Amino acid sequence: MADGQPDVRGFSTRMRRTVEWGDCDPAGIIFYPTYYRWMDAASWHLFAQVGYTAERMRTEHLSLPLVHTECSFKRSPTFGEVCIVESCVERLGGKSFTVRHRFLAADGAHELASGRETRVWCRYEAGPGTPLRGEALPQALRARLAGEA
Amino acid sequence: MADGQPDVRGFSTRMRRTVEWGDCDPAGIIFYPTYYRWMDAASWHLFAQVGYTAERMRTEHLSLPLVHTECSFKRSPTFGEVCIVESCVERLGGKSFTVRHRFLAADGAHELASGRETRVWCRYEAGPGTPLRGEALPQALRARLAGEA
Amino acid sequence: MADGQPDVRGFSTRMRRTVEWGDCDPAGIIFYPTYYRWMDAASWHLFAQVGYTAERMRTEHLSLPLVHTECSFKRSPTFGEVCIVESCVERLGGKSFTVRHRFLAADGAHELASGRETRVWCRYEAGPGTPLRGEALPQALRARLAGEA
Amino acid sequence: MADGQPDVRGFSTRMRRTVEWGDCDPAGIIFYPTYYRWMDAASWHLFAQVGYTAERMRTEHLSLPLVHTECSFKRSPTFGEVCIVESCVERLGGKSFTVRHRFLAADGAHELASGRETRVWCRYEAGPGTPLRGEALPQALRARLAGEA
Repeated sequence: MADGQPDVRGFSTRMRRTVEWGDCDPAGIIFYPTYYRWMDAASWHLFAQVGYTAERMRTEHLSLPLVHTECSFKRSPTFGEVCIVESCVERLGGKSFTVRHRFLAADGAHELASGRETRVWCRYEAGPGTPLRGEALPQALRARLAGEA
Repeated sequence: MADGQPDVRGFSTRMRRTVEWGDCDPAGIIFYPTYYRWMDAASWHLFAQVGYTAERMRTEHLSLPLVHTECSFKRSPTFGEVCIVESCVERLGGKSFTVRHRFLAADGAHELASGRETRVWCRYEAGPGTPLRGEALPQALRARLAGEA
Repeated sequence: MADGQPDVRGFSTRMRRTVEWGDCDPAGIIFYPTYYRWMDAASWHLFAQVGYTAERMRTEHLSLPLVHTECSFKRSPTFGEVCIVESCVERLGGKSFTVRHRFLAADGAHELASGRETRVWCRYEAGPGTPLRGEALPQALRARLAGEA
Repeated sequence: MADGQPDVRGFSTRMRRTVEWGDCDPAGIIFYPTYYRWMDAASWHLFAQVGYTAERMRTEHLSLPLVHTECSFKRSPTFGEVCIVESCVERLGGKSFTVRHRFLAADGAHELASGRETRVWCRYEAGPGTPLRGEALPQALRARLAGEA
């Protein structure tokens, strides 16, 4: 599961993004940090879909700090192109997990880029601004992300 | 038409945007330049809707450089909120024009912010990288933006 | 003081910024929201210079929400150009104030763009996340910004 | 050389960056794609330092498209912190190369994050907008990057 194809049995989300004028560089193609902005947004969307909305994350003092991110680039979309961001949790550790993001052309077939984010499930000790502490991923959430619930 | 209400008879577009984690500042609200990124995207979308797609703009060597932009802020949306960007051309000069953008809460009723972009209809003299020259807005486009076609 | 030249007697700051690859659009010039990112940064820098550092703003629960921003564009710098951002408070109201930002070419003479931000001096009622309340600008700060101290 | 310490014999650059208000997320720390914006800027700066300025890259129709980027995060700087970006080319292939970027706290000692960009030395076949073709890195440039010239 860690390499190659995403685990299609697991929970996955799809998000559409248009490459805007301001997302491009002077070469007329996507400025690559844009992919990371999309990955971050896609991870938050994925967690919202399994019950952890922005509102709930805030109320329960949860956060998802990053350990490592990476992305490989195959073909760069240009201004106006529609991209599909397909995301799933491909690895579930005790406290950390890895979200895989595939960027597809509008046809849903051709891969533009492929990235990963390794994050930790954390809670602020005493509300925003206080230190973050890693926590075991809740069992119900694990089951949901693994496609078992 | 220049002030106050947008001309509801004119051509207008609507675009949805979610306030992403990375669109916010440490105060947890939208970082204000985000509104300008959305305005720029909304203007390109508006022109695409009336026939001037990214592809066509590129092929015909057209560009829409800015003279002035402004925005007034009423209430700042927070992470996860959905906003509606309502755009129309509220002023049509010979070569320049003003796009008005209203940012509404997801209910479509409460205004979050309101901005304007004054742009010039321009063509590259001899392709990308060469000087831009202002041109009269095409008559068919004027009619379309004014809601007459 | 509100129009035309900045009040040279008042406190002013200068900040250098290089137009990076990712600050540009497919036309190879600065993507205009970049100016607003710079304005925001310049305002924070200006207040840090008169004693209100990021640290102090955080500790004293102060914030500077925006009412209105605007910018006029004269000549667009391209990738690699150095710009100077010259900022001063050109209007001091009771609680609100206006920061003027001039963007100059590296020679310090040619103006590229000119903008303004109207902000309110605010304090969180009970720490981050709680409502903001406007406050009178401290007298010592007013004097400092006006160039009297 | 591929792992661990950067090759101190090679050519390296240092760039200072302040974490601005708009570079942060609602957690009050750097929004991670900011690191990638800095990496991209640092790579362009590094090449400018060895003779390949923005101007020259444009004139000679050169570009540096990306194959892969990654970053590991240790400690997240907050609003107002100064960071040092230390960059060097740690791998020189025939056409591709890897730039290593280390992000240090203002003291120059503590590492905040560490990333890599793998890029290809490319030229537009017939100017901007035409296809990119990989080329062998010029011999003089190789020597310079390796610290031999």
